Amino acid sequence: MAILAVGSVAFDTVETPFGRAERVLGGSASFFSVAASFFVPVNLVAVVGGDFGEEQLRAFRGRTIDLEGLERKDGATFHWQGKYSYDLNSRETVRTDLNVFEHFKPRIPAPYRTSDGVFLGNIDPVLQREVLAQVEKPRIVVCDTMNFWIARKPEELRETLRKVDILLINDAEARELSGEWNIVKAARAVRALGPQTLVIKKGEHGVLMFGEEGSFAAPAFPLEEVFDPTGAGDTFAGGFLGYLAGAGAPGDAALRRAVVMGSTLASFCVEAFSLDRLLTLTRPEIDERYRRFQKLTHFEQI
Amino acid sequence: MAILAVGSVAFDTVETPFGRAERVLGGSASFFSVAASFFVPVNLVAVVGGDFGEEQLRAFRGRTIDLEGLERKDGATFHWQGKYSYDLNSRETVRTDLNVFEHFKPRIPAPYRTSDGVFLGNIDPVLQREVLAQVEKPRIVVCDTMNFWIARKPEELRETLRKVDILLINDAEARELSGEWNIVKAARAVRALGPQTLVIKKGEHGVLMFGEEGSFAAPAFPLEEVFDPTGAGDTFAGGFLGYLAGAGAPGDAALRRAVVMGSTLASFCVEAFSLDRLLTLTRPEIDERYRRFQKLTHFEQI
Repeated sequence: MAILAVGSVAFDTVETPFGRAERVLGGSASFFSVAASFFVPVNLVAVVGGDFGEEQLRAFRGRTIDLEGLERKDGATFHWQGKYSYDLNSRETVRTDLNVFEHFKPRIPAPYRTSDGVFLGNIDPVLQREVLAQVEKPRIVVCDTMNFWIARKPEELRETLRKVDILLINDAEARELSGEWNIVKAARAVRALGPQTLVIKKGEHGVLMFGEEGSFAAPAFPLEEVFDPTGAGDTFAGGFLGYLAGAGAPGDAALRRAVVMGSTLASFCVEAFSLDRLLTLTRPEIDERYRRFQKLTHFEQI
Repeated sequence: MAILAVGSVAFDTVETPFGRAERVLGGSASFFSVAASFFVPVNLVAVVGGDFGEEQLRAFRGRTIDLEGLERKDGATFHWQGKYSYDLNSRETVRTDLNVFEHFKPRIPAPYRTSDGVFLGNIDPVLQREVLAQVEKPRIVVCDTMNFWIARKPEELRETLRKVDILLINDAEARELSGEWNIVKAARAVRALGPQTLVIKKGEHGVLMFGEEGSFAAPAFPLEEVFDPTGAGDTFAGGFLGYLAGAGAPGDAALRRAVVMGSTLASFCVEAFSLDRLLTLTRPEIDERYRRFQKLTHFEQI
């Protein structure tokens, strides 16, 4: 029941109203893999440069994260620099140095090809399809994308979406992809492109899921200290797919629990810079916060 | 178990991307009263002008809404004109003619003074206190306010809040009132001003409630057609307090059901202009949508 995770492993330099972190571990595949590894083994496919050393690798060691697919290339690791406004809802990209990530061509090691689940981080939709061409009948394919690909490669993205079970995007992306403002209409249009299930991430406003058996809404966990939102979406994806792949029976009930589990992991992610909080997190802490989500949302019938 | 409702009864002229409605029934007390009357009798205190006739009163007739407190004065009825942007999330006030509402002095008829619950619409906090001075030991006092009073009469508002059980405001108002951006911190600061329970309305993003027994989050009902958001907040308040006053035993479980009931009523309100949808609404339709809220939010333990 291992998951193949393909995306970026990066250095992030992040400035928030509460502090600054310089060249700390980031990237979609990093957040995803650590979150998912609480539930199932993860096969990581990404590329780093010569500046990515044992100190950074420590984040993945001692977990069920296989690193055979972590390619090392001459050059520097992808470096993203961003700055958050006071409300933490908007961020400005100060600088993007793609470096070795610019020509990333995911090669899937043989043992990874029978992975049970696949997570396609928000890379070029052409590369996403190349990943799918290298794997054998995964049970669940989860895909992320971003406004850049929606605008620049709409046809390639549509081709990829036909092969995807679950699409995870934010509300602005759902609107852009569908051309519909209303989120229910947007969801119907996006699902018509292929994904049976659409999970719309709304940041501090929670998550909406649209699937075969209707829709599901979960709030974000109300936190007193949100320190750095970087990676929350990818951490959500890791908790979501990790839980789902490990849950056995698929279906609506498991998808709902997976959304809450993704939200639970994401709520820890934002409590510190980088993966710092995820790296100290324990399974009992996860389960306790999941139960607090139940208390947060429960109401009785009339 | 009647509720006293004090606020505005008005004419609204509303423009949305989907159409325009000219001088239709509006005002906080109108939406509140019709919504609450599905659950308990309502004693309405408001003021209208000579231009408010039998056609408008029909909205209240045939319901358990007492009109003895609906004062009629020489002059024109309060008229608000607004225009919504394409996303329906922002609106511009085109014109406000306070007319007879400008010198509104709520006088509470003797039979209303023993009302079980009180709803203080977002009028001057000094007037809100004058209402409370005229009633005898209501079981629940629910109060609304707005940025205008938070900025212009902060001390008077604080004095009023000391006498309030439940404050219903939106997220921007909670932040402005507390001076805290983080919503959990804002809630703690607002509750320290008096209200045991704070209900924060977030429009399409649902509701957060903070109380003695922790917090509760409910989504907004995802609708395919949102036609006109005018009155949704007051309709929420009517469904919330109406349900709560009729529910018998107070406490956290009843408050949670009341939030969902308020959200249910509000989800109908936005389906048409003015009170149009509320006026055709039936109790079985309400109960059916409440059950759909349960389906929308339910997830199992792990």
